[in-house]
Amino acid sequence: MKGQMMHRPLKIADLITFAADTFPDSEIVSVRTEGDIHRTTYGETAKRIAQLAHGIQGLGIEVGDRIATLAWNGYRHFELYYGISGIGAVCHTINPRLSAEQMIYIINHAKDRLLFVDLTFVPIIEKLREHLPEDLRVVIMTDRAHMPETSLAGVLCYEEVLDGQPDHMDWPDFPEETAAGLCYTSGTTGNPKGTLYSHRSTVLHAYSLCVTLPKVLQEGSRILPVVPLFHVNAWGLPYSAPLSGASMIFPGGALDGKSLYDLMEREKVFSAWGVPTVWLGLMNEINQRGRLPDGLGDIVVGGSAAPRSLIEGFEKQGVNVCHAWGMTEMSPLGTQGNLPPRMDDWGMKERIDRKQSQGRRVFGVDLKIVDDEGNRLPHDGKTPGHLYVRGNSITSGYFENPEASKLVFDEEGWFCTGDIAAITSDGFLVITDRSKDLIKSGGEWISSLDLENIVMSHSGVANCAVIAVPHPKWDERPLLIIQSKDDDAPPPKDELLEMLGEHFAKWQLPDDVVYVDALPMTATGKVSKLTLRKNFAEGAA
Amino acid sequence: MKGQMMHRPLKIADLITFAADTFPDSEIVSVRTEGDIHRTTYGETAKRIAQLAHGIQGLGIEVGDRIATLAWNGYRHFELYYGISGIGAVCHTINPRLSAEQMIYIINHAKDRLLFVDLTFVPIIEKLREHLPEDLRVVIMTDRAHMPETSLAGVLCYEEVLDGQPDHMDWPDFPEETAAGLCYTSGTTGNPKGTLYSHRSTVLHAYSLCVTLPKVLQEGSRILPVVPLFHVNAWGLPYSAPLSGASMIFPGGALDGKSLYDLMEREKVFSAWGVPTVWLGLMNEINQRGRLPDGLGDIVVGGSAAPRSLIEGFEKQGVNVCHAWGMTEMSPLGTQGNLPPRMDDWGMKERIDRKQSQGRRVFGVDLKIVDDEGNRLPHDGKTPGHLYVRGNSITSGYFENPEASKLVFDEEGWFCTGDIAAITSDGFLVITDRSKDLIKSGGEWISSLDLENIVMSHSGVANCAVIAVPHPKWDERPLLIIQSKDDDAPPPKDELLEMLGEHFAKWQLPDDVVYVDALPMTATGKVSKLTLRKNFAEGAA
Ligand SMILES: Nc1ncnc2c1ncn2[C@@H]1O[C@H](COP(=O)(O)OP(=O)(O)OP(=O)(O)O)[C@@H](O)[C@H]1O
Ligand SMILES: Nc1ncnc2c1ncn2[C@@H]1O[C@H](COP(=O)(O)OP(=O)(O)OP(=O)(O)O)[C@@H](O)[C@H]1O
Ligand SMILES: [Mg+2]
Ligand SMILES: [Mg+2]
Repeated sequence: MKGQMMHRPLKIADLITFAADTFPDSEIVSVRTEGDIHRTTYGETAKRIAQLAHGIQGLGIEVGDRIATLAWNGYRHFELYYGISGIGAVCHTINPRLSAEQMIYIINHAKDRLLFVDLTFVPIIEKLREHLPEDLRVVIMTDRAHMPETSLAGVLCYEEVLDGQPDHMDWPDFPEETAAGLCYTSGTTGNPKGTLYSHRSTVLHAYSLCVTLPKVLQEGSRILPVVPLFHVNAWGLPYSAPLSGASMIFPGGALDGKSLYDLMEREKVFSAWGVPTVWLGLMNEINQRGRLPDGLGDIVVGGSAAPRSLIEGFEKQGVNVCHAWGMTEMSPLGTQGNLPPRMDDWGMKERIDRKQSQGRRVFGVDLKIVDDEGNRLPHDGKTPGHLYVRGNSITSGYFENPEASKLVFDEEGWFCTGDIAAITSDGFLVITDRSKDLIKSGGEWISSLDLENIVMSHSGVANCAVIAVPHPKWDERPLLIIQSKDDDAPPPKDELLEMLGEHFAKWQLPDDVVYVDALPMTATGKVSKLTLRKNFAEGAA
Repeated sequence: MKGQMMHRPLKIADLITFAADTFPDSEIVSVRTEGDIHRTTYGETAKRIAQLAHGIQGLGIEVGDRIATLAWNGYRHFELYYGISGIGAVCHTINPRLSAEQMIYIINHAKDRLLFVDLTFVPIIEKLREHLPEDLRVVIMTDRAHMPETSLAGVLCYEEVLDGQPDHMDWPDFPEETAAGLCYTSGTTGNPKGTLYSHRSTVLHAYSLCVTLPKVLQEGSRILPVVPLFHVNAWGLPYSAPLSGASMIFPGGALDGKSLYDLMEREKVFSAWGVPTVWLGLMNEINQRGRLPDGLGDIVVGGSAAPRSLIEGFEKQGVNVCHAWGMTEMSPLGTQGNLPPRMDDWGMKERIDRKQSQGRRVFGVDLKIVDDEGNRLPHDGKTPGHLYVRGNSITSGYFENPEASKLVFDEEGWFCTGDIAAITSDGFLVITDRSKDLIKSGGEWISSLDLENIVMSHSGVANCAVIAVPHPKWDERPLLIIQSKDDDAPPPKDELLEMLGEHFAKWQLPDDVVYVDALPMTATGKVSKLTLRKNFAEGAA
């Protein structure tokens, strides 16, 4: 028997309409590529989004068309999220740190019809232009006064697309399964693969994010997404902030510790979201100035495992660290690492131990861990297995890529994350590795994450990675790669191995330690173990 | 173009599975009809819910069957919410304060197959038994030791339904539009009408409630629903508490000021939810003891307009009052009255002014106000009109009642609330009356709510109502009805009219004042203006 309730499609545009009605004065503050700071509100932004939508329709865009963005975090990029999806088109965010080759692949694969580009990235597009679809039109995200000289033919100016358009839109209805956003993985293995988000998946994800982080996502809260709008929808914040009434502070392109510190202090940011590398930079700046930016109370860290030392550094200064785990294919949120109140009176060490885990699942994400044969493993915190997920905000297949799609679902239809993890009896996910980064020595698994965590606590280590190198007898053996804080005084090998020796069995210790000037990074700001594996395929030599 | 995301049905059972996985230790505390206090957790409760579901299936219950409950707020009633809907049956909550006639109508109209009944209400059912369907089986919500002597044939014992059943359930999948709950309005006009909630409407409503009240609905929070589980799902709390991780304190049948105070104090209740009458009782108790119950920080009040004096009384003691508005037909939440941070530095008077309004809409509820011809009215805070709503948690028609259904939707498919309201430019709903309570004098509307609010601030008034009485010249004129705090010293008529005279034009003032021992109440704890209108159809005489 069916219930007798109205059926309204879950629609992204309803989020901004709601925010404009309900939180008209909540702020969107942006560090602009033009150099200044820009302030606006949800009330004003909803009007500009309507203008943008009318403007895009005027350019001949129709339901289902893909429209690409290549931009920093700023209000115009936010407007594009809503203006594009609102009319049933698909907002395809491109990671500007991808290689030229990957970018060309992505834009052609997505068949983008429009490309919105920040001033900073115009040169990139100039270089790629001849490899992009001929009918792709480029819009530069600035006003007439700041339009650059460019070799690009027929470029449009963002503000002129909006100019004179009506500032109200009756957003069309369409099925909630309609595509709304497209984001390609950084493609560390093979060509990038696209996740095609729907209105339904996006709205439900926004709901779950708000429910999961009630202390952060509420009216009056000020949130800084350092995580880029081109990396899995800035973890869903552009949708959950308007839903909750929180204000957003967009940092533009200046993501170094000093710039972030100054922005946070000036804007009284309460919660800041980003990958570990970013927080290592901020922590440095905090240490130098000897105090936290005013107002900072919360850090959300994800994208790769947060080093223990990082969590500890913030927690000891009274900043709550929420260690979250997710994937592009998951919209992205899977788990969140805030601790339950019953752990309030635990000691700092025990609390940090727990915060090193990836935390508890959010509503709408089902987790299972299985062995190589697909049998379910117990949730005892000790038995790692292949992690699979299921839920409304999880991919059901890669965009126009049936081959890649075939490989990632099991018979029950669950998505294979590629992560190896255990789950504790009280529901905490503990990721031990990515399956492709696993080190298998003499038939036993060695967790690279566990080793890295200990090494990161050495005061002379800026960053590190443990990778597998081939070994004739043991199959694979761990190699430790160090980026020192001070190149002239790198932490000695013996000291590092001794440190590790206190926590690990002898056979788990790295066979060697090598020192590099800088660890290679992926486009999403993670240490690129793929590159390291290539560079050290022969071992430390 | 469709997105490529998994489609999982939104399901109520997933809420309790989630809570058991994620918040296994969050509490459910119940004042039992057996007389003692019962404590359990989401972890334990999920197991009992599985047992209950197996037990019900063993009684031959199938998808779509209606199962009625007649019970106070307690853990067994909560278990029924999940056990019944989890297997695709429909949990039909009955208001024990309905008349015998209405109850007979409802149970027969719903074609209930099972009836779960608290010890307290066994006598009611004994009396009605012969008018109820023959094949209706009655389950008494207690254990074997407490089973009463009863004239009812073939009654079952709740704990025996669970006994020996497996404590795990693989909850079946079904379309998210499947019916899950049924609640009849109290039927102050005509026969009660049923709202048939679906899994989708319920889960989305739970999400919206959490997002709307992030300070209350979070892990570690302790919430007391005084609003009954038989009154619109206790405003959705049984679904949103497990979603957020909050603990619930169920008060059983003792809802007087003293009992509530003691329970709140002992259980350190942070937020308590109920109708104004309940809070008037608690406020009395607080005034007598000279202090708040320990831990109390928040009151949610709805169901009818919160008197200004009530809001003020709590706010002055530092308790946040959230004045909410909703309807049975809306699951029920429509708007919430917490103030935005920009009003933090407003004076107490201005803040209370605002809190008297019904607040801002929640995500998923669209509001419109229209004139008699259906034309949209401006959101200027001054122009009241007929209030219509639209959204996923709003009825699309009454259960098996096409005649009643026909009357409540406009051509665009919006639901007519029967309320008269204005909306301010910053999104606050201001209800001036129910259309059936409106007083139309000489072609002009007089708001009974506005008059009542002023009168309620008189220290000698316990409760009051303003109703319309027929008038030969003006059509209708307002009559003020007073329930005094002290029958020996009722507030004098002159004093009351003088008070009103300071706020209203002369023609808006009541023509007369009458005094009653007690105002008649509806089954949902509101002043019954219908009864008053009948009693005073001839005016004060
Ligand atoms: N908190 C965390 N702890 C450990 N690993 C994490 C965490 N958060 C994310 N990850 C890792 O990042 C993966 C998701 O990567 P993401 O989708 O963000 O980027 P990507 O572009 O797909 O990168 P890649 O191409 O390397 O997969 C997860 O499967 C997991 O391995
Ligand atoms: N905060 C509030 N302020 C004013 N009126 C309110 C408020 N909350 C609820 N109401 C009134 O209660 C109505 C909803 O009644 P509800 O569904 O809770 O009970 P009911 O059983 O339908 O009662 P009735 O039979 O009298 O309609 C609303 O339409 C509105 O008139
Ligand atoms: Mg990936
Ligand atoms: Mg009603």
